[in-house]
Amino acid sequence: MRWTLPPDQVPEAWFNVVPHLPASMEPPLHPATRQPVTPDDLAPLFPMALIEQEVTTAPWVDVPGEVLDVLRLWRPTPLVRATRLEKALGTPARIYYKDESVSPAGSHKPNTAVPQAFYNKAEGISRLSTETGAGQWGSALAFASALFGLECMVYMVRASFDQKPYRRVMMETWGGQVVPSPVDDSASPGSLGSAISDAVRDAAGRDDTHYALGSVLNHVLLHQTVIGLEAKRQLEMAGESLPDVVVGSCGGGSNFGGIALPFVPDPSVRLLAAEPMSCPTLTAGTFEYDFGDTAGLTPLLPMYTLGHDFMPPSIHAGGLRYHGDAPLVSNLVKSGRAEAVAYPQGKVFEAAITFARTQGSIPAPETSHAIRAAIDEALAAKEDGEQRCILFSYSGHGLLDLSAYDDYLHGRLVLEA
Amino acid sequence: MRWTLPPDQVPEAWFNVVPHLPASMEPPLHPATRQPVTPDDLAPLFPMALIEQEVTTAPWVDVPGEVLDVLRLWRPTPLVRATRLEKALGTPARIYYKDESVSPAGSHKPNTAVPQAFYNKAEGISRLSTETGAGQWGSALAFASALFGLECMVYMVRASFDQKPYRRVMMETWGGQVVPSPVDDSASPGSLGSAISDAVRDAAGRDDTHYALGSVLNHVLLHQTVIGLEAKRQLEMAGESLPDVVVGSCGGGSNFGGIALPFVPDPSVRLLAAEPMSCPTLTAGTFEYDFGDTAGLTPLLPMYTLGHDFMPPSIHAGGLRYHGDAPLVSNLVKSGRAEAVAYPQGKVFEAAITFARTQGSIPAPETSHAIRAAIDEALAAKEDGEQRCILFSYSGHGLLDLSAYDDYLHGRLVLEA
Repeated sequence: MRWTLPPDQVPEAWFNVVPHLPASMEPPLHPATRQPVTPDDLAPLFPMALIEQEVTTAPWVDVPGEVLDVLRLWRPTPLVRATRLEKALGTPARIYYKDESVSPAGSHKPNTAVPQAFYNKAEGISRLSTETGAGQWGSALAFASALFGLECMVYMVRASFDQKPYRRVMMETWGGQVVPSPVDDSASPGSLGSAISDAVRDAAGRDDTHYALGSVLNHVLLHQTVIGLEAKRQLEMAGESLPDVVVGSCGGGSNFGGIALPFVPDPSVRLLAAEPMSCPTLTAGTFEYDFGDTAGLTPLLPMYTLGHDFMPPSIHAGGLRYHGDAPLVSNLVKSGRAEAVAYPQGKVFEAAITFARTQGSIPAPETSHAIRAAIDEALAAKEDGEQRCILFSYSGHGLLDLSAYDDYLHGRLVLEA
Repeated sequence: MRWTLPPDQVPEAWFNVVPHLPASMEPPLHPATRQPVTPDDLAPLFPMALIEQEVTTAPWVDVPGEVLDVLRLWRPTPLVRATRLEKALGTPARIYYKDESVSPAGSHKPNTAVPQAFYNKAEGISRLSTETGAGQWGSALAFASALFGLECMVYMVRASFDQKPYRRVMMETWGGQVVPSPVDDSASPGSLGSAISDAVRDAAGRDDTHYALGSVLNHVLLHQTVIGLEAKRQLEMAGESLPDVVVGSCGGGSNFGGIALPFVPDPSVRLLAAEPMSCPTLTAGTFEYDFGDTAGLTPLLPMYTLGHDFMPPSIHAGGLRYHGDAPLVSNLVKSGRAEAVAYPQGKVFEAAITFARTQGSIPAPETSHAIRAAIDEALAAKEDGEQRCILFSYSGHGLLDLSAYDDYLHGRLVLEA
């Protein structure tokens, strides 16, 4: 079963969770002065419209018409009830997933890439620089840049650059330029932290260039709330009131935030972030001010972190290899409003195969963390004999991650990592 | 702009073009006796339900409920107006495409893989064998087999097996087994014809196994008519009466047939098949009885053919490397009801890049033949100053064909092939 909505039902305003947070947010601090950053501090990197969204307390923020025009190429995305998976698990739970894999880039990332490209274009910028882990974010920004006529420069974590050559080709097909990061150490597998440093340096050094971040920041999570907003409407169409639990995989937090934030005002709804055991930011990190990047160029953010020089192993879910987490998500976890769980990749790929062979779609390794958690929630409901309603974000397909499946299917994957 | 339909709007009957053909169909002949084949001749390879569909003259054939349940995982597919492409071309034409790439396997092929798996399962078969060129068909059958609990054995054209390792992984993810073909000549790049021979030999030798064909036969094209049937409804939603021209890429004919056959009764609608210049079956072949495979194991079919031992060069559109063409499509072309055009792959990839950078989606090389033809039709409309309506089938995405894009973008593709 599947619930679609016509293109004119794309949400016309983003949901701002800030007025609904259980605890107040601490401000980002300037990396040199350790004083709260000002809009002027951020102006070399971001357009003013995004800086305003970063700090706004307005409950809703309008989506510009030019952004809606592009989002409507694939949004609203379908909500699917995973009846075949439910049957295979023998669970009384009802499992729904929001299918973000239908975007041209194959993930939820274009939801923020499109408005970021739009606002930069509107303020006269002609070139964007960014980092990418698994390649999902870089693909999304290359796609959005093509549609708004911007140049796009992508610093790709070297581990993924080497593992996923097709991701580079995808970005090049949209006209993007891609180099492995760190640019100054070809022996390093890299990390999202080091790639952010490369991209920020690029943007800081050129007047025609701004930086675009694919996760972590408030405005990024704001743009992703279309996921949860649409899902709420579609659950109503499916005859559900509210889900018992909302699940999302969590690296920097944009996917988890996108599906979960619109449910923060609904106290009965549990919010569950799934992360890799090899990069267990929310489950084993500490909550403190830390840099967003390895080199210490970004503002200090109040968040769960493993330390900005943490170098996670080269697991296949490259999009989740981030030392920190979005301040908004960290706030929710610290206050107890959201929970987190960590999985080794063997358990994650086991869930991915189960999903592919029942529902038919092949999920990204990142997404498969949420599938693992949703399956475990469904099995817990079976154990408890309860008909719970589970919603998760199917954040991206795995069609450019098939080398990871090849490794798993042929016994070459480190299951415990 | 994009028109969606809810899952309960999947057509509940397939459209049979046979009563509407401008010329009568000659029967398939037995390869040994050269007499018309009987149902009993075909029974070792196909379930009786499909054999009946192969020869039926009923105007409509009901779609079983169990098939609808699976098709509804992704159908109805969207109809999209390519307004950004129109703008880039400066054409007064309105270009619509039916997006078949949203299926789990990424192409139109599951439209027939699902009913074929269903009917075989219903008649007690536990294993299917098949051939695949680019891998789209093998992927579709592996997917459908997983959902109906069948084993799936895929003989993959060696040129594609070597070029596209991820296609193999995709099939294995769904539990399929994949080997390169021809199995007895590891130096040959193979062809669809030789892979069909391997798959037919496999099925003929085992009682638990039937053969499944991804194109050419009447029942395959019948199953694909959901594409054109949905498109007709969606064009009405878009305020169009009938398109001026319907375009589909054409290898064995299932994609072209799927979008075009429902328009055969509408005489004002031109039907245009786009094929590769390196395998120009409809534009340079002869109409005669020929075998469907290289070894001469299949019935003789009345069709346009380049000769069953024709070995096309290893172009990237592996799904179009077939020496023959569907008898139904051949009938339409021979009688003048349908037209055909052939393109070299350089012109095809040029169109693919234009599409990716305007509409955002990256098309399969096969699909890009239709895009090339649709663009040329739109440019002709511009030349003539006419507001024509163009419909084409976006038969599959190119996310597992990115090595071909890599070659094109970096000057390694033979443009004239």
